[in-house]
Amino acid sequence: MITTIFRKDRARFLAAAIILFAVSVSAFAAGEEELIRRASQILGPLPSSMPSAENPITPEKVRLGKMLFYEPRVSIDGTVSCSKCHPLALYAADGLRKSVGHNCAENPRNDPTVFNAASQISEHWVGNRTSVEDQAKQAVIGPPAFGMPSYESAEKVLRSYGEYRDLFKAAFPSDPEPVTIDNFAKAIGAFERTLVTPAPFDAFLRGEKGALTAQQIRGLSAFMDQGCAGCHSSPFIGGQIYQKFGLFEPYEKYTKSGKVDDGRFVVTKKEADRRVFKVPVLRNVAMTPPYFHDGSVDKLSDAVWIMGKLQVGKDLPQEQVGDIVAFLRALTGRIPDDVMIVPVLPSLE
Amino acid sequence: MITTIFRKDRARFLAAAIILFAVSVSAFAAGEEELIRRASQILGPLPSSMPSAENPITPEKVRLGKMLFYEPRVSIDGTVSCSKCHPLALYAADGLRKSVGHNCAENPRNDPTVFNAASQISEHWVGNRTSVEDQAKQAVIGPPAFGMPSYESAEKVLRSYGEYRDLFKAAFPSDPEPVTIDNFAKAIGAFERTLVTPAPFDAFLRGEKGALTAQQIRGLSAFMDQGCAGCHSSPFIGGQIYQKFGLFEPYEKYTKSGKVDDGRFVVTKKEADRRVFKVPVLRNVAMTPPYFHDGSVDKLSDAVWIMGKLQVGKDLPQEQVGDIVAFLRALTGRIPDDVMIVPVLPSLE
Repeated sequence: MITTIFRKDRARFLAAAIILFAVSVSAFAAGEEELIRRASQILGPLPSSMPSAENPITPEKVRLGKMLFYEPRVSIDGTVSCSKCHPLALYAADGLRKSVGHNCAENPRNDPTVFNAASQISEHWVGNRTSVEDQAKQAVIGPPAFGMPSYESAEKVLRSYGEYRDLFKAAFPSDPEPVTIDNFAKAIGAFERTLVTPAPFDAFLRGEKGALTAQQIRGLSAFMDQGCAGCHSSPFIGGQIYQKFGLFEPYEKYTKSGKVDDGRFVVTKKEADRRVFKVPVLRNVAMTPPYFHDGSVDKLSDAVWIMGKLQVGKDLPQEQVGDIVAFLRALTGRIPDDVMIVPVLPSLE
Repeated sequence: MITTIFRKDRARFLAAAIILFAVSVSAFAAGEEELIRRASQILGPLPSSMPSAENPITPEKVRLGKMLFYEPRVSIDGTVSCSKCHPLALYAADGLRKSVGHNCAENPRNDPTVFNAASQISEHWVGNRTSVEDQAKQAVIGPPAFGMPSYESAEKVLRSYGEYRDLFKAAFPSDPEPVTIDNFAKAIGAFERTLVTPAPFDAFLRGEKGALTAQQIRGLSAFMDQGCAGCHSSPFIGGQIYQKFGLFEPYEKYTKSGKVDDGRFVVTKKEADRRVFKVPVLRNVAMTPPYFHDGSVDKLSDAVWIMGKLQVGKDLPQEQVGDIVAFLRALTGRIPDDVMIVPVLPSLE
């Protein structure tokens, strides 16, 4: 009889365990579906390019723009091209606290990657460039960038290459003089508008099983629950709004900043814009240290914890910081193969 | 009868013309064959790689070496990698009169391309680097290059990346500590030993019809007849001997040099080595201006005419200079596709 009871109990236990397991799995699946639904609303999957009505993407512009991206001969000392501060090998950032332009001139802020950059409300940390085209154009005469004395001097260099004359003509066929700095900017802009990097996170949003690890899924939940996604929204996980850096405490309390940066105030001169910066795109953030507008923090885990303190007023536990970092790694995307092929630039001879 | 005579004459004329044409063609073909024979002896077709007994080329070394070629984090200011002075977009030279290293330090001489460079008796203009491996190693602590305080400091940087530890282990499996500066140099050396660029000239030597234009063929003849090939010999069209720059007149009479460079004298301290330089490889020369050890001449045609005056004591007519330049353009090679693909470098996070 004892055996019978035991058998009955075991059967009951097994049945209960199976039901519990089934419920957990379906709860987990339901939880994951709900997470995908929420994440799709607030964040969303990466589009295939970042189009612009003012500068339609054409193969001719992209081809030319990619060459110009590598062209150092339009800089005053012949050493600066877009790729100097945006080397593709380092995910199109440069790994420095602050970028270095012609004749070793230091830039005022840390170098953002150009991957997924055309998606933003503006370019640069303080939004003083309206678009990737505007950024490319102004870099040519920028004192800490290419440092050319004038746009005309850069146009003169470009016109001296027969191959460039042909390529500008092909990219801008209706322009009587196609080799202009505005078209230089448009070509580079068109190239940069193709620089999107689909990541495991996008596969997860499409419902691909196993695209994210359990820790990355926890990190995504925490990223939304803790309020990070309030500012770092859109498929680009940022780049859509300006926000004060240090909502709860002064940022320099936790960063290793030297002097305090007035941020967007230097552009607008409005008191409300003091210490305000553009919320950066977090795609590929794990590949583009150091962090913040001044590149003052080296480790992503430190940056996440500091953001918790400064922006949402929370002392995030290390385990959750680890989860969020794991999720941010799921934003490291694949760079399209053809983007990684270096073009050969023309020679005068 | 007049018509008959005319017909007869015409027939004779036609027969004569046909014979003359056939003789010319066969003479031309014989001349071309003879030219191929001579050029094959003195110059010769490019090999498929530039092997070394001390540093056998393996896929693991090449893969790692290509990544290290792009790695700026082993430089003191984080801005210098091999690719800084050897950007592939500019045929692995940099287009400057003299290269610029860390913190804008100027190099003493013009930057030679790394394409086909491993073929030479030594590296650098004055032969103060014994091989591409030696060059890569010494660049790390070179004051106008990477500027690291010691080899150990560079090794420490490399060891901080897990991906590099794995890749060094894979490339040097029998080494108890694979991440060393010597292995850094060997990996980059192995990559550079694959950087050969087959050109139309090689197709011509293989007998491919139409590989060179008539002008390029005249230029090749002139290149050999005028004595250029006396120094610019081997399949690499140079790189095999040292020679005084200015055999007939002081070089600064024609170049736009500032101060005179003692050349290899600075290495050997022998009087005979004053103003002596390594004869540069001329493959891809049309793609790598400016010219000479000090980059003082911009145009290839000027460089060719100056070489005629200085090295063979001849005032080459402009037409022949044009022919030789046309031939030199036939040395512009195709860069292997896989070489042009930028590798992604590891991140700490």
